[in-house]
Amino acid sequence: MLFAKEEYKQRLKKVQAVMQEKGIELLISHDTNNMNYLTGYDAWSFYYAQCAIVHVNAEEPLCFVRAQDAGGAYIKSYLKNENVIVYDEKYIHTWPKHPYDYLVEIIKERKWDKLSIGLEMDAHYFTAFCYEKIKQGLPNAKIKDSERLVNWARLVKSDAEIGFMKSAAIISQKGMKTAMEVINPGVRQCDAVGEIQKTLFYGTSEFGGEYSSIATLLPTGKGTSASHLTATDDEFVKGEATIIELSGVYKRYHSPMARTILLGKAEQKKIEAMKATNEAIDAGIAATKPGNTADDVAQSFWAVLDKYNIKKESRTGYSIGIGYPPDWGEHTLNISKGDKTILQPNVCFHMIAVMQFGDWGVEASESIRVTEKGSELFCNFSRELHIK
Amino acid sequence: MLFAKEEYKQRLKKVQAVMQEKGIELLISHDTNNMNYLTGYDAWSFYYAQCAIVHVNAEEPLCFVRAQDAGGAYIKSYLKNENVIVYDEKYIHTWPKHPYDYLVEIIKERKWDKLSIGLEMDAHYFTAFCYEKIKQGLPNAKIKDSERLVNWARLVKSDAEIGFMKSAAIISQKGMKTAMEVINPGVRQCDAVGEIQKTLFYGTSEFGGEYSSIATLLPTGKGTSASHLTATDDEFVKGEATIIELSGVYKRYHSPMARTILLGKAEQKKIEAMKATNEAIDAGIAATKPGNTADDVAQSFWAVLDKYNIKKESRTGYSIGIGYPPDWGEHTLNISKGDKTILQPNVCFHMIAVMQFGDWGVEASESIRVTEKGSELFCNFSRELHIK
Repeated sequence: MLFAKEEYKQRLKKVQAVMQEKGIELLISHDTNNMNYLTGYDAWSFYYAQCAIVHVNAEEPLCFVRAQDAGGAYIKSYLKNENVIVYDEKYIHTWPKHPYDYLVEIIKERKWDKLSIGLEMDAHYFTAFCYEKIKQGLPNAKIKDSERLVNWARLVKSDAEIGFMKSAAIISQKGMKTAMEVINPGVRQCDAVGEIQKTLFYGTSEFGGEYSSIATLLPTGKGTSASHLTATDDEFVKGEATIIELSGVYKRYHSPMARTILLGKAEQKKIEAMKATNEAIDAGIAATKPGNTADDVAQSFWAVLDKYNIKKESRTGYSIGIGYPPDWGEHTLNISKGDKTILQPNVCFHMIAVMQFGDWGVEASESIRVTEKGSELFCNFSRELHIK
Repeated sequence: MLFAKEEYKQRLKKVQAVMQEKGIELLISHDTNNMNYLTGYDAWSFYYAQCAIVHVNAEEPLCFVRAQDAGGAYIKSYLKNENVIVYDEKYIHTWPKHPYDYLVEIIKERKWDKLSIGLEMDAHYFTAFCYEKIKQGLPNAKIKDSERLVNWARLVKSDAEIGFMKSAAIISQKGMKTAMEVINPGVRQCDAVGEIQKTLFYGTSEFGGEYSSIATLLPTGKGTSASHLTATDDEFVKGEATIIELSGVYKRYHSPMARTILLGKAEQKKIEAMKATNEAIDAGIAATKPGNTADDVAQSFWAVLDKYNIKKESRTGYSIGIGYPPDWGEHTLNISKGDKTILQPNVCFHMIAVMQFGDWGVEASESIRVTEKGSELFCNFSRELHIK
């Protein structure tokens, strides 16, 4: 168990209180991150249907997993064994049979089929098929979108969670240091990622790293105009820029970081774009304190871009914490104009400036914690355009 | 472009022919693997809504991506720029706004809103929310589940695809060799994965590796009873077994491999379980040839298990090829009793025996290609219990 049982209990209470408010009696939480948050369960089993089931009055959630993963649930979750609900292997890739057929059975057996049931309608892996199984199987239930109820419960971190993110940040720094060392003209992109991955898994002698919820992103050359490209076996080219976005991970907690490196002669337009970007990030950081909103941070950020007449359409940050593929964002707070989420101590976000200018771009980011009086950065690593 | 344009055209034709058969005039293919197969697009952008759109009479599919990823689609897909459809950043995590609002607009603009529209109802990332957007936004369309129509089109590989899988297999072998070397008592699991990852990305001097669609699975000790556990920073323990499941990846094509290692004294029950498992796998391989069915392979496999009185509930294989997180399975052919899929040359599957016995387990697997007369293994690596 990664956290004290008391911490898991508090998480459950927090979620149940919001369920009460929203009139949700039973919550099917399919989001992998939420499942980890609510039960402690951790395994690469999310490629098949699984979920946490929260009754508004229950003392523990239920952890609904495939038979092959039952052993993992007993080992990794904090739950009593009786609260691990195991579905048969006959449901694996044998459509129209589906694990949610069994979920429906379980809900009926427990006489929960007339309750108001909350579903995470846009959670990764909560497919249209899962939804139809629930709707057709439980015609007497009142189905509603629970939206990102559990995600919002995750927004303010405990000190224990912050500790994990600080460990992740130290690993991120090491990974980025390796990246800056190994990215050189003539080196294959994949070889650079090999070294970066090795560093990220080794972590430190005190704590090791884990797989990240997003692969090392490594757009290079023209690819810098597209932030989500990954490494190929092509070589880095002299004169071209490369964006590195990565995250150290500790016990599934992430502290991501993006930087840009330029191989060869300094190019004035890129240096200037990077400088303006960093000034904007600094302005955002300066506005990060309890009581301010995400919008305040965004306004400060875009005020600097406006000064330099730089256009940027995409949001410039999002809350972070637990992460499973395909994402390390929490899907709640966004650093964008109009997001009125109020910052509180231990809200954490990844402020990332993806700057695209036609066929080139630069990026930089900081993982940030809101403190009692302002903010602090998780990582300590220059955001300058690294020229070599 | 990874494949000749002619190959992409043939893929499209194959899919359109099945659409015709099934009465689907427009296909929304949300599955990341299918999108890659149909358009060539490749980036870690699948954490937000994207899809390929196939009209039954079109000369090219459409590639529907986020504005931030447009550059990536121009670089990676084989499509004309006009067939890359870009949605605005305002749709990113601003529910109830959603990228599929724009998809609905596009479909209406093109007067496709009264067509029979196929949706991949149980595809990863095709959320209930996407589905509701389509249903509500296109009330005059005839919506149907296209099931795994494109996945089935992927079942028989081209020789070019087989070439990629053979490269992936060489990388898998290297990765497993590293694993066998570095897994030792007192070594941290994460450090072993660091070395394995490094090897998988370096690949060979001719071709490099890529991120895998499943993290290196590394259940150890009691964890061998749960096949999907990943590495922690705990150390390997003398006397305990560890399962390694990994895949080399080349241009998104996978050739996965699982093996089991035992640190310390040979343990008879594990040696025997491994032996019986390998005999069963060999029996399955012997039954793998064109004209036989997946069921024939399964029958041969389970006949051996029955002889040894070993119970195994889960399927023992699935088709493979392209992979994106969270899975490298194709979701079509299963090696399980009752699967009557007929084997043809260039059908490829991962025959994996996950053997669980209460609080311990062993595993072994082969990635297999059906040939003109029988079958061949992609990898060449002993399946014996590796004892050291």
